[in-house]
Amino acid sequence: MKIGIVGIGLIGASLGWDLRQLGHEVIGVSRQQATCETAERDGICDRASCDLASLQATEIVFICTPIAAIVPTIERLIPHLHSDTILTDAGSVKGAIVDRATALWSNFVGGHPMAGNSESGIAAFEKGLFVDRPFVLTPTALTVPSALNTVDELVRSLGAIVYHTTPERHDLAVAWISHLPVMVSASAISACLNEPDPLILDLAKKFASTGFRDTSRVGAGNPEMGQMMAEYNRDALLRSLYRYRDRLDGIIDAIESKQWSEIKEILATNQAARHEFLDPDAHD
Amino acid sequence: MKIGIVGIGLIGASLGWDLRQLGHEVIGVSRQQATCETAERDGICDRASCDLASLQATEIVFICTPIAAIVPTIERLIPHLHSDTILTDAGSVKGAIVDRATALWSNFVGGHPMAGNSESGIAAFEKGLFVDRPFVLTPTALTVPSALNTVDELVRSLGAIVYHTTPERHDLAVAWISHLPVMVSASAISACLNEPDPLILDLAKKFASTGFRDTSRVGAGNPEMGQMMAEYNRDALLRSLYRYRDRLDGIIDAIESKQWSEIKEILATNQAARHEFLDPDAHD
Repeated sequence: MKIGIVGIGLIGASLGWDLRQLGHEVIGVSRQQATCETAERDGICDRASCDLASLQATEIVFICTPIAAIVPTIERLIPHLHSDTILTDAGSVKGAIVDRATALWSNFVGGHPMAGNSESGIAAFEKGLFVDRPFVLTPTALTVPSALNTVDELVRSLGAIVYHTTPERHDLAVAWISHLPVMVSASAISACLNEPDPLILDLAKKFASTGFRDTSRVGAGNPEMGQMMAEYNRDALLRSLYRYRDRLDGIIDAIESKQWSEIKEILATNQAARHEFLDPDAHD
Repeated sequence: MKIGIVGIGLIGASLGWDLRQLGHEVIGVSRQQATCETAERDGICDRASCDLASLQATEIVFICTPIAAIVPTIERLIPHLHSDTILTDAGSVKGAIVDRATALWSNFVGGHPMAGNSESGIAAFEKGLFVDRPFVLTPTALTVPSALNTVDELVRSLGAIVYHTTPERHDLAVAWISHLPVMVSASAISACLNEPDPLILDLAKKFASTGFRDTSRVGAGNPEMGQMMAEYNRDALLRSLYRYRDRLDGIIDAIESKQWSEIKEILATNQAARHEFLDPDAHD
């Protein structure tokens, strides 16, 4: 197939590489000329330029820009496309994207590759990034079945584990496992940094170990990305945050009233259940 | 020196091995005969038994039992000791231990080796576990200076980075970096498990990735250990939890009122500051 990629960052570049390995022709578009040159030189795209018009003969285009740019990119891209071109995206929220994108382009299929690493940008691209990782597609009643099938088959050929769900369920689920952890973790670092006694803060910094490191990691990640999550998945994130605050209050109550067995019970339940979130077999 | 170790778990066994390598004679005491046999067989102790009386000729004894057993162990050990024997412990809270232990035995020095791995028990022991890790000593006005010096030198010889602070400051600092993360993380898993829609919970389990994995790790650890932290460091933990809840409320308010720049600012501050907690140079 002749495939377009707009936004040649970590996701776009990793898609480009893998799709070319599968024999597809990949045309990239980036706002940065230097990125286009890197993409061509490193075999990520057959051709890359800053010009959306270069995508006019493509059969499918992956929009891999930051969330805020997805719909505006589609608006600017549409004048250049044949009406049977399929559009899909890689945004980590779907409710805010899918309805608007489908209204603009009926051959749109919402997508979310749940793969990545701690880096961003074209330099962070990884071969086989999507292998054995969830790749979520979010059809609605308006999604064209043949477009969904095409995206499904293409994504499956990357080795991804494909899930179909609604944009709403996708957003509620990622609020739990991706966006809530950012806010929970951010609050922990932020609270500690506000420790009023400089001697205590200094000791905390010196004593910090793996427990603090792991719990604080996602709360100190890319600030723009964190803001986007909050902004574009606001309702689902607030729903998780309210439920989270209830559980936190429950734990605080238990400690205040010295209900030690309740603390132990909560931890034991967590210990028994956590593997369900992380067992690779759970992805089958 | 002739050194006793009571409680031959991860910490006690790792101490025993390293101290023997340094040429000391190590006498171990465990409640379990099988543990004693393993300790002798694997070169962790010169001799090990279930009998506290075996420690009567030791110059220093490390109490490496769970927190709840430290003071009771000292009470049972005292009748067997020469008055110049030094006692020290490895408990992860100090306020609840040091005053009571010092009242029982004036040659007591509170200690907390901040080393470990995800396992527990003698089978988890590691050679060189304390190298380049913080080892906190918590003298008070009543601590005998020569006893403190002896423990300090011995611990330093293990390659540990030794800090001296008060039991109170120790407990406030570890509440931030060790005990708060457990409760924050536990609340996140627990809230997610209480998701009322089974379809959302199922997707959350399938989509969970590194962000959820890291943030949920310490909240699904050993339940007894988590309970002990809460029970024995209750006041400092509540202090951190209240401050944490304030920051969480601030983040929820910002999301409710769509103050996106505030979210970004908090995350940017965290991103800039987090390395101070994790840079190995910060331990010098």
